[in-house]
Amino acid sequence: MARTAGIVVIGNEILSGKVTDTNSPFMASELRALGVELRRIATIPDELDVIGDTVREFSGAFDVVFTSGGVGPTHDDVTIEGIARGFDRPVIRHPELEAGLRRYLGDRLNAAHLKMAEVPEGAELVPDSSLGFPTVLFGNVYILPGIPEILHKKFESIRARFRDAPWHLHVIYTSQGESTIADSLNQVVSEFPDLMLGSYPKIGDAEYLVKLTIESKDEAYARRAFDRLVALLPAGSVVRTE
Amino acid sequence: MARTAGIVVIGNEILSGKVTDTNSPFMASELRALGVELRRIATIPDELDVIGDTVREFSGAFDVVFTSGGVGPTHDDVTIEGIARGFDRPVIRHPELEAGLRRYLGDRLNAAHLKMAEVPEGAELVPDSSLGFPTVLFGNVYILPGIPEILHKKFESIRARFRDAPWHLHVIYTSQGESTIADSLNQVVSEFPDLMLGSYPKIGDAEYLVKLTIESKDEAYARRAFDRLVALLPAGSVVRTE
Repeated sequence: MARTAGIVVIGNEILSGKVTDTNSPFMASELRALGVELRRIATIPDELDVIGDTVREFSGAFDVVFTSGGVGPTHDDVTIEGIARGFDRPVIRHPELEAGLRRYLGDRLNAAHLKMAEVPEGAELVPDSSLGFPTVLFGNVYILPGIPEILHKKFESIRARFRDAPWHLHVIYTSQGESTIADSLNQVVSEFPDLMLGSYPKIGDAEYLVKLTIESKDEAYARRAFDRLVALLPAGSVVRTE
Repeated sequence: MARTAGIVVIGNEILSGKVTDTNSPFMASELRALGVELRRIATIPDELDVIGDTVREFSGAFDVVFTSGGVGPTHDDVTIEGIARGFDRPVIRHPELEAGLRRYLGDRLNAAHLKMAEVPEGAELVPDSSLGFPTVLFGNVYILPGIPEILHKKFESIRARFRDAPWHLHVIYTSQGESTIADSLNQVVSEFPDLMLGSYPKIGDAEYLVKLTIESKDEAYARRAFDRLVALLPAGSVVRTE
């Protein structure tokens, strides 16, 4: 169970626009469904100090942290070393990971493969039945690979660990723009201070101008806020609700 | 001209997985083409202190900063107030923005609209011929809206300000996996310490296993590193180059 989370996306390929990060949107959506509040995403370069500083900061600030990318056998895979540096730990070769690689690769095993057995000292392994290769967990930091297909499988194998109370979401689509409905929104926010109320204008949609999201972990509270907002909005402005 | 950049994406809708951020991938790609090094992307919630702290940190660390989202007439549009707080400035109503709104909206102007004339004290306006509404610039921070269609237009109207020397990119696709080519990559990195060399495995592609990117702002250096890497890679492993 986790209340808050942070994601650290590691990779020059994202910052240089060569690859679009799909891992953080995937995890954002998964975490929401699990009832976990994702508080921050940092996208950073393949640099030891930046990785170490960012992961250490996130680890202290949030209940659980996921890193994406920078694990593998080549020179630009520096996530393990960066995290080790951030927590002032040596990098060690994990005996269980090494044994697994030897079993799997036999005579083909080389020095590059063995880089994939490295972890920050103190890391534990979370078994993964679907992939046959465990996930590395260092403190509250799950170290995940950047390849989306593998990250998805790994996340799915650990997701049950994080489940928290769910959010209750209502949606209202309006035919009026934000400036016209702003007073109604402000009124609801003042009456329901713990509500998460989002207002998202859409350009070029034939059906609606603004999508409003009303959310709370308290189901009755969310329902009351939804009813109140529907009543407050200008007559005829509600196109549809969900 | 700008050497380095940071992007701050502001919005609970991104962190809660309701909306996928397309603005930072768009700007990442644009900045790369302009020769600007994007160093960091932070995705943060609609909260004054987090906005203020993050934007102030980025403003000090990078030549230019772009914020995306949280500008508009509703309660969850708190980017202006957050930045003002981060730099310990009051929020003021900019006379030129207010005049523009009055001209455009006439009698329809309400308090919610006027929120869109607010800026941190000391902000300047960058005229925008394509939209008729200027971009707010505070120090080295360009404050852009979250709606992708408008962000794109605004970015296009200011992009010429940031042009730097271009990168020179070569690409090699290999039929061998990362573990097999890692030695060749390490050799090139040691011979060309200023090179940006990326190694990106792909799952499920019939043509290649790894895409290698070789980059430098020095055209001859990039070319020499490319030639050297092609020569070092195991015989027959180069599928195609770009």
